[in-house]
Amino acid sequence: MLGVEDRLALIKRGADELLIETELVERLKSGRPLRIKAGFDPTAPDLHLGHTVLINKLRHFQDLGHHVMFLIGDFTGMIGDPTGKNSTRPPLSREQILANSQTYQEQVFKILDPEKTEICFNSTWFEPLGASGMIRLAALHTVARMLERDDFAKRYRGGQPIAIHEFLYPLCQGYDSVAMKSDLELGGTDQKFNLLVGRELQKHYGQPPQCVLMMPLLEGLDGVNKMSKSLGNYVGINEPPREIFGKLMSVSDELMWRYYDLLSFRASEEVAGFKREIASGRNPRDVKVLLAQEIVSRFHGAAASVDALSDFEARFRQGAIPDDVSEVVLDSVDGELSVAQVLKQSGLTSSTSEALRMIGQGGVKVDGVKIDDKNLAFAARSNFVLQVGKRKYARVKIR
Amino acid sequence: MLGVEDRLALIKRGADELLIETELVERLKSGRPLRIKAGFDPTAPDLHLGHTVLINKLRHFQDLGHHVMFLIGDFTGMIGDPTGKNSTRPPLSREQILANSQTYQEQVFKILDPEKTEICFNSTWFEPLGASGMIRLAALHTVARMLERDDFAKRYRGGQPIAIHEFLYPLCQGYDSVAMKSDLELGGTDQKFNLLVGRELQKHYGQPPQCVLMMPLLEGLDGVNKMSKSLGNYVGINEPPREIFGKLMSVSDELMWRYYDLLSFRASEEVAGFKREIASGRNPRDVKVLLAQEIVSRFHGAAASVDALSDFEARFRQGAIPDDVSEVVLDSVDGELSVAQVLKQSGLTSSTSEALRMIGQGGVKVDGVKIDDKNLAFAARSNFVLQVGKRKYARVKIR
Repeated sequence: MLGVEDRLALIKRGADELLIETELVERLKSGRPLRIKAGFDPTAPDLHLGHTVLINKLRHFQDLGHHVMFLIGDFTGMIGDPTGKNSTRPPLSREQILANSQTYQEQVFKILDPEKTEICFNSTWFEPLGASGMIRLAALHTVARMLERDDFAKRYRGGQPIAIHEFLYPLCQGYDSVAMKSDLELGGTDQKFNLLVGRELQKHYGQPPQCVLMMPLLEGLDGVNKMSKSLGNYVGINEPPREIFGKLMSVSDELMWRYYDLLSFRASEEVAGFKREIASGRNPRDVKVLLAQEIVSRFHGAAASVDALSDFEARFRQGAIPDDVSEVVLDSVDGELSVAQVLKQSGLTSSTSEALRMIGQGGVKVDGVKIDDKNLAFAARSNFVLQVGKRKYARVKIR
Repeated sequence: MLGVEDRLALIKRGADELLIETELVERLKSGRPLRIKAGFDPTAPDLHLGHTVLINKLRHFQDLGHHVMFLIGDFTGMIGDPTGKNSTRPPLSREQILANSQTYQEQVFKILDPEKTEICFNSTWFEPLGASGMIRLAALHTVARMLERDDFAKRYRGGQPIAIHEFLYPLCQGYDSVAMKSDLELGGTDQKFNLLVGRELQKHYGQPPQCVLMMPLLEGLDGVNKMSKSLGNYVGINEPPREIFGKLMSVSDELMWRYYDLLSFRASEEVAGFKREIASGRNPRDVKVLLAQEIVSRFHGAAASVDALSDFEARFRQGAIPDDVSEVVLDSVDGELSVAQVLKQSGLTSSTSEALRMIGQGGVKVDGVKIDDKNLAFAARSNFVLQVGKRKYARVKIR
């Protein structure tokens, strides 16, 4: 078993902030399995690597012998956005949520040990709470303190409406921690306020307040924007193995190290070894291959990762990008630029209609990966090699 | 049956504000019985005349053939003040609330016709609502609009805490109107904001918004402060008939007209006739007697009112206050002054201990009414005749 310091180092690997470290050290010293909480939204069960940052951290805790609680926020999921203004949060039926949670579990159990994972649904404690319990919960926090939360403060000052139920959601998240007797809650850095509400409510209910571990948002393939489906810079864990492999091989060397920190289960010492080797002349491409293989193996098994590697090498040999590709710099419109515009403006096709035809025929590649989505758009600050057919290339930078 | 104009005049008698008059006129024209709502707090079942102003108005509506709904706020009563800061709002058990509501009914049915009164409990609709329903309700209003309510605005600006559940209570009151399909809600002028929330929520739920009728707060016997138990300027409806009679005979002529407006069921024309008679020389005392008799009859029956009158007249004959009573002006301490201090400082007793002894022996009268409460205190701006034994008098004014 690792010493407390080594355990703490693993817990902190890749994390942005840990509160309160001395409290966590005390609990680690106790030797008992800690109750580790992470909450997930039941609306989006189709995970990409960005979502797995938190799940990987849960895996670290499992490896250290702790009790992982995977919370599905079905109670608020069934409510959705009652104002109807946020179309990404429609109210879900119990059946939809159960189906989504099934899909979730299939995906996360590629990372987590199902035997050591407790799946929780917060309707378990919110339904018996009742309207009166919700009022009592609301009495535990003040309006002024809620308006200190960055986004609320900004909206209030800017005259943008804040519906009152939005003040109840942080309290619900905090009450989850009470009901789950959480020792530590994991969340994104954008969740800091809500995570701290959990500490307060636990104190009110006579529990020791949870520690809070905040993970960063993972950058997408462009290395700049956060990984997101709508920006097209993501790697979905259910994508075909060859696709995942190719996408990971396209990242910059700098981003590769970030991905090693947040996505790889290789020991930190091993990753440090890779860095030294590259400094002494090893080709970074070899180390990138190891990362791509690890990720593909995780989600699709070892055989798929071997296949993806040989496919990638075959394509690389056939279609290696020449050294003398010309560079074009294009202006984004409203922060993005469609692939058809990029093809036309870079001169690789004579028109957007030709561009769309070429995509339809499978003749367009981005960083060596064939694309088939005619609606694909690139975000500002993207940087990639575009290829049409066998011979036409351009290195594209979008401003 | 009265015409719409006469019905409207009766509805508006004594009222501070009616919203929206044209809407109410439309509904009155329809001829259907309107659903009239008034909410009551289940904590204080011991009514004084101040509480009856609203109930008298409900009686007007009953007399006009409308459907009166007497709402007991048991749902919030069972919650009490969850912050524990407001000791006047302890959480009540269901049994306590039922007992209180029984006491309430015994008292209000001296004014209202039980056959035409529906007693409602808002737990009927709030318990099935659940925590999720409370969140959906909270989504119907914004933080900014809630902070426009006078008292919230003042506290927020002054840095005094507002607990979040305080934002939920106006919504609960509004939702009561939805659940009760209220056509008109009665309330105090201090309730304006909450009464209007009911209109909004009804619109949201596709109902025509309720009209709102606001009644003033009744002044106490001093004619200045609102009638309240803690100020000692009240007439409790369960007080002995002679006590009620004597207290009402002690009010100023000006206050008598106010009480006629808000407490008497005599027709406005009849009251106007009294005014003309007094202008032509009738003794106001005679008209005051009629008011005192009406009120005593209402709560204790006609026989008690006859007895109270003859008792009062006997005492008046025996103990008529002489014309040459000297006046003393005393300073209040923290807004009030105890009866023992008043007796001592006015020179009617040589010490407070003598004062207390005289009260104990039944030798102290205020405006001709014997007092027995040694803890009685007079509010600032009180103005009354104090009598010790048969011969000692003083006219006391408290600053």
